[in-house]
Amino acid sequence: MTGRLYGIGLGPGDPELLTLKAARLLGAVKHVAYFAKAGRRGHARTIVDGLISAEAHEWPLLYPVTTEVHFESDDYIGQLSGFYEQSSATLADIMARGEDVALICEGDPLFYGSFMHLYERLRGRFAVTIVPGITGMSGCWTAAGAPITWGDDVLSVMPGTLSAAALKARLAVCDAAVIMKLGKNFAKVRAAIAEAGHLERAIYVERGAMKDEKIMPLAEKSDEIAPYFSIILIPGNGRRP
Amino acid sequence: MTGRLYGIGLGPGDPELLTLKAARLLGAVKHVAYFAKAGRRGHARTIVDGLISAEAHEWPLLYPVTTEVHFESDDYIGQLSGFYEQSSATLADIMARGEDVALICEGDPLFYGSFMHLYERLRGRFAVTIVPGITGMSGCWTAAGAPITWGDDVLSVMPGTLSAAALKARLAVCDAAVIMKLGKNFAKVRAAIAEAGHLERAIYVERGAMKDEKIMPLAEKSDEIAPYFSIILIPGNGRRP
Repeated sequence: MTGRLYGIGLGPGDPELLTLKAARLLGAVKHVAYFAKAGRRGHARTIVDGLISAEAHEWPLLYPVTTEVHFESDDYIGQLSGFYEQSSATLADIMARGEDVALICEGDPLFYGSFMHLYERLRGRFAVTIVPGITGMSGCWTAAGAPITWGDDVLSVMPGTLSAAALKARLAVCDAAVIMKLGKNFAKVRAAIAEAGHLERAIYVERGAMKDEKIMPLAEKSDEIAPYFSIILIPGNGRRP
Repeated sequence: MTGRLYGIGLGPGDPELLTLKAARLLGAVKHVAYFAKAGRRGHARTIVDGLISAEAHEWPLLYPVTTEVHFESDDYIGQLSGFYEQSSATLADIMARGEDVALICEGDPLFYGSFMHLYERLRGRFAVTIVPGITGMSGCWTAAGAPITWGDDVLSVMPGTLSAAALKARLAVCDAAVIMKLGKNFAKVRAAIAEAGHLERAIYVERGAMKDEKIMPLAEKSDEIAPYFSIILIPGNGRRP
């Protein structure tokens, strides 16, 4: 009998936003794996402080590279691919011994999650249970107290890495939007939102659902860059009886 | 001192998918309100069986109309508007006495939620705490084991109530999609997906994260209609090192 892979969504950062199912499984599992940047403890691991067993074995999976190399370069893709292969082998070894392992993930495991790269490599060989998590964007619109979609609104979720033209085309045919992965793309994204006529209702949220969250109208955020854990919300204006 | 309004997301149906925060607040609050169809107990109330205090006062808020009247008619809008006014007054009375009330909601309160209609009417007068929930769509892609977005994928969430032309236009500029509110719109939505070239990868999920869930390739679902608690997923094909 081989072990089972658990992909456990942790939500946006507040440990109380874990699900009952995630907390129950984390308290029981013997092996806990998590992604982190080399030299850091990692956000996922920090969230589960006090929730995992003191006897649990921990398996940090350390990214060989994050933003130092462009994500579309062969170098980046090659390094990441090797890293996911190696990480999958690490978890496969544990499961081959008949033991379960939980890979914990910020947000929701199947929504832009690094978990998916290991899941695709392991799902044929091992049993898998996935526990959904509150997405980062939901943490942000809740922190802002901003209903995101009403009635028949179409919501578009898009990464700030898109070109200015692609952002504009998508912003033109949505009623509500969430723009993620801001960072160095922040000024380009803000300009595209302004051009599409959405600047007045756009909200900037930094570190939503974390201790030091910041929320402000996008129009008041004049910097050229934004941190990784930031999001822009464009709330919809749909039907409201 | 007036009471506080809690908007508590319950997630997609499995009571274990409530957050720790939702469960804690529900166990402590003295008044629990929920929307339901007249003559039914309602899905939200059923999810929290065993989670609310036996001494809690329950406040069912019964929709005067659901699908019998078209949602764009003056009759529907007028009836719903009166209902939301009356429901807000009911909760305001409780809070004016200095007591807290929790309005429980399936999914996430600020994502297409009826909660928002009461929130907009009460937020100026009373303190509000909102607890995000796992969305129904996340429950569905988890049930299907289908990663929904990779890398720079754009996700579009759209209601099946859109016209065939509007559905097609939006399906043409997204990488991944979720289509909700199927019901009588099912055949129109399936045709639009087929025309946009997404039929082969589309997944149909009925009652995801509930006991009697059904999951199948959309191409194999040949009926003309689908139940309310059903969703179509079009998983993205983005970058995966």
